[in-house]
Amino acid sequence: MPGRAVDAARPAQPSPPVQRICFQLQVLPERADEYRARHRDVWPEMRDALRHAGWRNYSLFLSPDGLLIGYLETEDFEAAQAAMQRTAVNERWQTEMEPFFGTRPDTALEPIEEIFHLD
Amino acid sequence: MPGRAVDAARPAQPSPPVQRICFQLQVLPERADEYRARHRDVWPEMRDALRHAGWRNYSLFLSPDGLLIGYLETEDFEAAQAAMQRTAVNERWQTEMEPFFGTRPDTALEPIEEIFHLD
Repeated sequence: MPGRAVDAARPAQPSPPVQRICFQLQVLPERADEYRARHRDVWPEMRDALRHAGWRNYSLFLSPDGLLIGYLETEDFEAAQAAMQRTAVNERWQTEMEPFFGTRPDTALEPIEEIFHLD
Repeated sequence: MPGRAVDAARPAQPSPPVQRICFQLQVLPERADEYRARHRDVWPEMRDALRHAGWRNYSLFLSPDGLLIGYLETEDFEAAQAAMQRTAVNERWQTEMEPFFGTRPDTALEPIEEIFHLD
């Protein structure tokens, strides 16, 4: 197909649309160091659960004063959250994270509006 | 090389390492709506300049109270910032954005520490 020659570098099948999700939470400042340390060693089964639930390219960023910012990509954030809610490992993890926030973090995630994007 | 068979799905050449950069700034709350509107229509030459300077997968997220969060991927953030500083279009854009912050936003970007990542 000569008409396609210029597109040779592109994949033949377009990828499904991706939602880029950003959220912020406040970690209790006096517990920020411990929260950081816990995230050096997230349980492998928690990482697997997130992956299977469709959380992709997921990062957490933590400022010294405890502002926590999350960024992830997924096909359907509502479904990705619901899938995590159905796992036992998430229940255990969130219970351990609650004291860092004073509330259960996974039920407090409010996506922030994306106002600009450049691929 | 039979030992590599399990890696067949991976690219033969590893991609260069990517820095994932997150920053936050405060938009004056009374100007947040106008800031959002301006980003629906970022100048094409500004988008091109960012792309050529190595800013990839770059998103801005804005909360109703003016918290602005930026996320991008790049090979070298310092170099990517310096490359933008050398462009005339960035000078024009930043001058127009300054009143939304009360300071020039591009010289106020402080990357926040990434404490967790899942591909």
